Amino acid sequence: MNSHDVGDLAVFFSPRSIAIVGVSRSSRSFGGLSFLARLVNSNFKGSIYPINPKADEVKGLKAWPDLASLPEKPDLVIVAVPAPRVPAVLEECFRLGIRHIHILSAGFGELGTEEGRRLEKTVASIGREKGLFIMGPNCMGPYCPSVGLTAWGGIPGLDGSVGIISQSGGITQRLTEYLASLGAGISKAASIGNAAVLDSPDFLEFLGEDDHTALIAVYLESVKDGRRLFDVASRIAPRKPIVMLKGGRTERGAATVSSHTGSLAGNQRLWQAFFDQVGVIPVKTMNEWVDVILASSFMPKPRGKGVFIVGGGGGNSVIYSDFCIEAGLFVPLLSERSMEKIRSFVPAAGSIAGNPLDLWEVYLNLERLFQVLETAYDDPAVEVVLVDRLIPRRAFHSPPVSDPTERIAEFLSVRKGVKPTVFVIDYDGGDPDLIQKGSALRANLCRAGIPSYPSVERAVKALARLCSDTSQRKFS
Amino acid sequence: MNSHDVGDLAVFFSPRSIAIVGVSRSSRSFGGLSFLARLVNSNFKGSIYPINPKADEVKGLKAWPDLASLPEKPDLVIVAVPAPRVPAVLEECFRLGIRHIHILSAGFGELGTEEGRRLEKTVASIGREKGLFIMGPNCMGPYCPSVGLTAWGGIPGLDGSVGIISQSGGITQRLTEYLASLGAGISKAASIGNAAVLDSPDFLEFLGEDDHTALIAVYLESVKDGRRLFDVASRIAPRKPIVMLKGGRTERGAATVSSHTGSLAGNQRLWQAFFDQVGVIPVKTMNEWVDVILASSFMPKPRGKGVFIVGGGGGNSVIYSDFCIEAGLFVPLLSERSMEKIRSFVPAAGSIAGNPLDLWEVYLNLERLFQVLETAYDDPAVEVVLVDRLIPRRAFHSPPVSDPTERIAEFLSVRKGVKPTVFVIDYDGGDPDLIQKGSALRANLCRAGIPSYPSVERAVKALARLCSDTSQRKFS
Repeated sequence: MNSHDVGDLAVFFSPRSIAIVGVSRSSRSFGGLSFLARLVNSNFKGSIYPINPKADEVKGLKAWPDLASLPEKPDLVIVAVPAPRVPAVLEECFRLGIRHIHILSAGFGELGTEEGRRLEKTVASIGREKGLFIMGPNCMGPYCPSVGLTAWGGIPGLDGSVGIISQSGGITQRLTEYLASLGAGISKAASIGNAAVLDSPDFLEFLGEDDHTALIAVYLESVKDGRRLFDVASRIAPRKPIVMLKGGRTERGAATVSSHTGSLAGNQRLWQAFFDQVGVIPVKTMNEWVDVILASSFMPKPRGKGVFIVGGGGGNSVIYSDFCIEAGLFVPLLSERSMEKIRSFVPAAGSIAGNPLDLWEVYLNLERLFQVLETAYDDPAVEVVLVDRLIPRRAFHSPPVSDPTERIAEFLSVRKGVKPTVFVIDYDGGDPDLIQKGSALRANLCRAGIPSYPSVERAVKALARLCSDTSQRKFS
Repeated sequence: MNSHDVGDLAVFFSPRSIAIVGVSRSSRSFGGLSFLARLVNSNFKGSIYPINPKADEVKGLKAWPDLASLPEKPDLVIVAVPAPRVPAVLEECFRLGIRHIHILSAGFGELGTEEGRRLEKTVASIGREKGLFIMGPNCMGPYCPSVGLTAWGGIPGLDGSVGIISQSGGITQRLTEYLASLGAGISKAASIGNAAVLDSPDFLEFLGEDDHTALIAVYLESVKDGRRLFDVASRIAPRKPIVMLKGGRTERGAATVSSHTGSLAGNQRLWQAFFDQVGVIPVKTMNEWVDVILASSFMPKPRGKGVFIVGGGGGNSVIYSDFCIEAGLFVPLLSERSMEKIRSFVPAAGSIAGNPLDLWEVYLNLERLFQVLETAYDDPAVEVVLVDRLIPRRAFHSPPVSDPTERIAEFLSVRKGVKPTVFVIDYDGGDPDLIQKGSALRANLCRAGIPSYPSVERAVKALARLCSDTSQRKFS
């Protein structure tokens, strides 16, 4: 769509009624019926109308022979009939005055066949000519936990401030599951697949204006109007972080794109310019995406790249310093005032007073940790703090300690506005006890609003992404 | 040491008797007593002699007033007295004909004080002049699970083929714990700390000749004789992989090195030349180290960089392709013969026949997975295979499947000589059920000798390290 009222897209995320066209009575494969089943099991409060001329009832709901026979005009129609029958459904929607349509069906441009491409063109021209708002085809459509519209998979939706626009349904399912498990909820998500009519700039513009969306996560393989994406993103990025995973950066990735969403991944140099100039934060993997989203959602943006690292172990202190520097951060010397304070409680042998601070006591004594953090927050060279939080483990014979989340959250809730602080809980490997305890602590900290990561390298990379973004914005 | 018989170092890893000098009767801090306690609780079968002139008994063992009064000459002496008293103990060892000494005590060059540096020089000259074999100071010393010498932390030692040389005790504890939990055991490990006398080239030479060691993992911050390290590593690397984490690559990391082991991290260009020319595999983090060690230990070296990726999801297929290419691997087109086979069972809509293969059926039907793998193993373009193994999860409403480890291991045990194959089990986040099931499957696969990773990026980076190493060796 070249222009529209962004308000029109809101209907996708708060329909009072949904009709699903193409619901078989029994099917084991993905399609209208499985989508209906998920919708019925979600907390969606509006009306749901299965359309099936041969059935009286589907999944406990009265079935209707066609859209025209419904008792009301549905706000949203989900189309799940085989691809060749989709154009006829769109024409019927237009005749009935239904304007919001999600085409779940696959079998269009992504097939790579002439027939598939022809059908997709037909969908696009009907949409444009009749002024229909169409998501898809070949996609999961809208998702909005605050109204119970959570028919993607079996994870209960968590309401929150992350908006999502994605050309991959599977990736978006995984992202919503992953974020929800760490306490980061979704405001509105749009799985747009082949994006034959409404494209990413339309939803970006919409989420840019949406008060419930504080950050926008985007997975794109292609875009039809690159200039418009550039313009819309440029307007939004300075006030709302856009974190984008661009699929098809390489020739082989781009070849896979054409089989997935039937689109062209585009010129890599243009995409690079997009990231360099617009201030969109680029990421390359699901983990990196989540890592940056957690940092961006849960804490203020660091004012600079000076990291103070708190933990235990001389070797770790060396490795973490190297990793920070190589990722583009600084590990500044502390002020003489801070060093005096720190030297007063750091033993000379077996510890290192400085940055990184190597002090095993911080694992056992929260008051000491807080004293260290206070010192760092007061030091002008420190702009962000990374705490490597060891959990009790057999390797180190460390004594049991109680879950520190509540006290840490309480401490940070008073001080967190001052200097952003992230935690690392290292629990990787095959020890089930370590994994269970470590991942639970990580999730607890995240759910308390403290960005926490399973490794220093992931924490550092996320911070580096945020900080480089900051510096770029300074000069734009 | 400039030259010695490598056989002499064997005594460190198979002592028949150990004396610990400097064992207080009660102490809560790390030192001789805690080390003794760990040794007593390990499976070490030899004699253990605590030396304490003021005690009759320590930890249930008869205590002895000094080394001279022992009923036999101990094979190994662990020195845990305060640093200023260490030289006198060394002199006593020499007088008694004891040649193998592990100095656990800290308080030497790493303090950065004149006194600390002076004491370390004294230790070094006594060692050289008297011909003593000294590990340390400021280190955990030797570790050898096959003889029950596993006093590092509370993890039962797992015997295996990985040798370790490390200047950090904490890093080595974590590495042994991490590897053991995934089924990779240790042949012999040497924590050498400040390495005032015996240095990394000595232990590298020793492990290079050790028949039980198939791979050598090294953490170094510095080396006294760089030329000798270069020579020894050059001789070993072509027949035994050396995987090295070099701490102090950056100026800030090097500054931390001087506080940790009191040494100079050295010229970065020389280290780069070392990695480029010698064929040592460089890594930068603990996770990457373990990832490469697992791949190197569990599977044959790939003959080239052509990866076949098996999994489900169009978006994932795109992201994984991009990541492989950007990491330096290839994602080759399959042969027409392979494609014919694959097309016969891959549905046109919702899947992608090719490389990557996007076929959800492989998650539910092991026979189909094996058919796909057979096809890949027969394809000349494929040199290594990466299987993205989804586990049952709520996000995708996937049905339960039984643990596939046994059948996969059985299948691969017949075919694994042909093409190296790694698995990815993605379970990250805060869902305890997903983490428990996913990490257990990962550990099971690893313990069955199949390298398995928690993310595609970690698997791909490990493969890229191995493959680039292969190509370098070709030209050496």
